[in-house]
Amino acid sequence: MKLITSKDNPLFKELKQLASSSQARRRAGQSLLDGVHLAQAWLQHRGAPQLCVVAESAQYHPEVAPILAQCEALQAQCLVLADKLYDAVSTVDNGVGLFLLVATPVASAPKALTESAVLLDGLQDPGNLGSILRSAAAAGVRQVFCSPGTVAAWSPKVLRAGMGAHFVLDIVEDADLVALCAASRIPLLATSSHAAQTIYDCDLSGPVAWLLGHEGQGVSAALQEAATQEVVIPHLGQMESLNVAAAAAVCLFEQLRQRTAGR
Amino acid sequence: MKLITSKDNPLFKELKQLASSSQARRRAGQSLLDGVHLAQAWLQHRGAPQLCVVAESAQYHPEVAPILAQCEALQAQCLVLADKLYDAVSTVDNGVGLFLLVATPVASAPKALTESAVLLDGLQDPGNLGSILRSAAAAGVRQVFCSPGTVAAWSPKVLRAGMGAHFVLDIVEDADLVALCAASRIPLLATSSHAAQTIYDCDLSGPVAWLLGHEGQGVSAALQEAATQEVVIPHLGQMESLNVAAAAAVCLFEQLRQRTAGR
Repeated sequence: MKLITSKDNPLFKELKQLASSSQARRRAGQSLLDGVHLAQAWLQHRGAPQLCVVAESAQYHPEVAPILAQCEALQAQCLVLADKLYDAVSTVDNGVGLFLLVATPVASAPKALTESAVLLDGLQDPGNLGSILRSAAAAGVRQVFCSPGTVAAWSPKVLRAGMGAHFVLDIVEDADLVALCAASRIPLLATSSHAAQTIYDCDLSGPVAWLLGHEGQGVSAALQEAATQEVVIPHLGQMESLNVAAAAAVCLFEQLRQRTAGR
Repeated sequence: MKLITSKDNPLFKELKQLASSSQARRRAGQSLLDGVHLAQAWLQHRGAPQLCVVAESAQYHPEVAPILAQCEALQAQCLVLADKLYDAVSTVDNGVGLFLLVATPVASAPKALTESAVLLDGLQDPGNLGSILRSAAAAGVRQVFCSPGTVAAWSPKVLRAGMGAHFVLDIVEDADLVALCAASRIPLLATSSHAAQTIYDCDLSGPVAWLLGHEGQGVSAALQEAATQEVVIPHLGQMESLNVAAAAAVCLFEQLRQRTAGR
């Protein structure tokens, strides 16, 4: 395996650039998957990475070594960085000393919505996006569309919060949500505290698209307009509104409950 | 209203200390509520603060002025800080220029659990705790118990994520969760991906306590042992596990659905 010890090494320089700049990653169409869990999930769902990078002191770590071995078996390029160099490119503190470099999967938007989906309009918080991706993947909803103003889905923070959900979903970024809604063949549900119909009274046994928005302002007026139904998550207490990722989980799992009822 | 312009003013020094140190706030039994939303929620649910602090340039701001007026009407002490001084104590960037100083509400642990509750064991992420508090408050669950290792509930980040939920809940920090469970008169539910019973098959129409844990490790072995039932949130996709705040929302709202079914 190649060991890099010089900070003048061109490949190291390239990695450093990719690690420090989301713009550089986007231009290159690459993402960095830091840590054992994301690496395992990638290998399980997507196969070989472009590159597997380990810190010199981590290569025999009991969790790292099998991943390295698997990458080599898949004939992926593997690289050992001297610890000083590794620390300079790592995106996390106190990481285990392993990351994968992968080609960012690009899903293309379908012509029309025909299966259950989540549409995210201007969501800001990386933790919220990661949590929503995880919930969608667990609830069996495969398509996620993000508006241009939504936080970058393949950023290190969102990847960390997503815990591998990214790799089993079709994530379409910079999606024209209003156009998607116009061409939809399934119900488009937006939550609203003013709606009369609750999610529990709504028939969620077929495919539906969930419209979710910015943490403060919700979905844009144009998108709210495009919704075919407004539904409310009922509340019992003195707080009316939920965190957007909590609301997404409640909606997606009420849908799962209805889809699997009687099975 | 008193205007402070000197950084040598003793009250300003005290505020600066409180704003910069969670330890100082804990010692003083005080919390800082930053921004219009938290201030409004406090006034609505808890009444007068100990102190209302505004930046000089913010005092006539259309959202700030009514809060200042309400605080004065409640005979709470109000204070204007020269903008430079305000910026030195503010806990947020680009805030509106208003915070309240309040006595941190202290709820005492009941002898036995008799009403629905959330028990949090070692939860780490401020956003997750805030989200869970919001979900509990919206689902009509009033009691929240936090183990000693859980993130501080009244920290600025948790307060921000809680959006005022703190003020309608009884939050007991540093709670002995195992002792609470031992003295419980209600079912103690822990989620587990290995459980046979789903949350949908479980009778949640009466009071229950939800045991939720650390983002990575879940609840401690001792607490899992104390659970009277293990339940699973079913999944359809290739991801099995949810973010802990998403899981909490799913559980709390399934409970709400069952409690309100047929109403």
